[in-house]
Amino acid sequence: MTAPGAGRTTDLPTRADVESAAARLGEKVRHTPTLTLHGDELGVPGRVVLKLELLQHTGSFKARGALNSVMVLDEGTRSVTAASGGNHGAAVAWAARRDGLRADVFVPGTATPEKLQRIRDYGATLHLVEGHVGEALEACREFSESHGVPLVHPYDTVETVCGAGTVGLEIAEQVPAAELVLLGCGGGGLYAGVTAALDGTVPVQPVEPELCPHLHAAVEAGEPVGHGAAGAAADSLGPPRIGRLGYETAARHGTTSVLVDEESLLAARRFLWERVRVLAEPGASAALAALMSGRVAVHPGSTVVVVVSGGNNPALP
Amino acid sequence: MTAPGAGRTTDLPTRADVESAAARLGEKVRHTPTLTLHGDELGVPGRVVLKLELLQHTGSFKARGALNSVMVLDEGTRSVTAASGGNHGAAVAWAARRDGLRADVFVPGTATPEKLQRIRDYGATLHLVEGHVGEALEACREFSESHGVPLVHPYDTVETVCGAGTVGLEIAEQVPAAELVLLGCGGGGLYAGVTAALDGTVPVQPVEPELCPHLHAAVEAGEPVGHGAAGAAADSLGPPRIGRLGYETAARHGTTSVLVDEESLLAARRFLWERVRVLAEPGASAALAALMSGRVAVHPGSTVVVVVSGGNNPALP
Repeated sequence: MTAPGAGRTTDLPTRADVESAAARLGEKVRHTPTLTLHGDELGVPGRVVLKLELLQHTGSFKARGALNSVMVLDEGTRSVTAASGGNHGAAVAWAARRDGLRADVFVPGTATPEKLQRIRDYGATLHLVEGHVGEALEACREFSESHGVPLVHPYDTVETVCGAGTVGLEIAEQVPAAELVLLGCGGGGLYAGVTAALDGTVPVQPVEPELCPHLHAAVEAGEPVGHGAAGAAADSLGPPRIGRLGYETAARHGTTSVLVDEESLLAARRFLWERVRVLAEPGASAALAALMSGRVAVHPGSTVVVVVSGGNNPALP
Repeated sequence: MTAPGAGRTTDLPTRADVESAAARLGEKVRHTPTLTLHGDELGVPGRVVLKLELLQHTGSFKARGALNSVMVLDEGTRSVTAASGGNHGAAVAWAARRDGLRADVFVPGTATPEKLQRIRDYGATLHLVEGHVGEALEACREFSESHGVPLVHPYDTVETVCGAGTVGLEIAEQVPAAELVLLGCGGGGLYAGVTAALDGTVPVQPVEPELCPHLHAAVEAGEPVGHGAAGAAADSLGPPRIGRLGYETAARHGTTSVLVDEESLLAARRFLWERVRVLAEPGASAALAALMSGRVAVHPGSTVVVVVSGGNNPALP
């Protein structure tokens, strides 16, 4: 099977590319706020700045890449299609409606009822597919080809990555003292985009659940490889494999992901709800889990940014 | 029955008083972020800036006034007491633990189980009182007098009001273009404090649920009067009566509250959850309800700040 993104250029997007996306998006996406916590609240030294991207349109960072992708479509395009575990589907539905396009969204049976409802709420036509995200993506590709409808990929095109990367431009502006950015990594679009935006000024550390170690497995194998996904975060961090752009970003920086166990992930989610009243979805709690569990060390006096990337799993912890 | 706060001076606190509180509190309280929404999302012209005070320690603005009150206690004080529908109780428990004090918190039987648990979590000794907040406050007064323990009032002392007012100083800094501030009004501490902080530079409009119209009734009567409280917001906006400082603030500015019905209040709460992933408690949705229901008009191009003051009622809308 061809890897998602294979055949496309693997030239990585640059900061200038992300800036172009930011100019295109303007105020059509929300500039999400940050909240500074004292590290001692979390049992770490230094300061922890939460980038509250779950407050974005559609409840996740995916709105940025989806809208950026829709905005560069050829004039006269009247319809788009997408596949997703849920967040990207809602984002494409939202972006399409915003621009008066029809959206056909392919979703695996494993998606949560809330995510399905959300996609419907934004006016998309929902196609439920037996299996996991990989099967949904395959059905979406077939639909795209047979109907001649552009496919908005969830994480492995320059447009999606640059849209997601605008989170990084905001971080640079909002937290000039940042010494490290932690973010969850699924398909790798957010990771690749934020890394491009920060352009070496601040290191970006991707974090994966132990049960969804796609980047980790790819770095070990020397290329993106298919990998299963399980656990609480599988609906948002469970792509069929890491994207080519995410993988190439890690390879260029000699980075791999930090892995967090389920218990740490759920503890981070509980902390966010009980002590900050932020209701993050499990996948969006992975980055904070890396910090709270000590998997990523913080130097006294330093400032670490943690991206809280989505909030579309409303079950209370 | 003596009105809470009667016997104290009714000289209203000034901006300088609020600035002193801010200097005292420093970074011991969170400087909560703002999120800008386009008015068209809400069906109003202009821009709407949410002040996300539900992200404060203990999940509501009450942490500011409680800690400010605890920090000015005589040296050697080892214990405090408070009464509350829940949010102030949690705030006093948190502030007391922070400073190594014992806290005895009196709560009416009407408080939600989550608020009770929250107070226990912060280490306070809980006293459940039959009846409503008024009865809890009475029991707390008796305990304070018989045990010689300072009472931290939920809304009607200069210390509480000035602590709450630090929200207003942050608004002035974060939203220099603000032309109006909307906030929910229960005992009136937040209203009095933010009005003092903004010192006439920006009008502050208090909002009450139709079923908890304490300020409204007081303005009509020409003095604070006892009034019942019902509806979804009664646990946070249901004091026995408006505080003297809140009432005097309204009287000085010739203001009364805008009233919102239950349906509008719950619609605003749903909007915050479904479209912003902010899980506000009902009382904290009253200010936005005034805007969304058209009870407060917004001029095209103007910027309105809406304080989302608490998030301690976790039932999903």
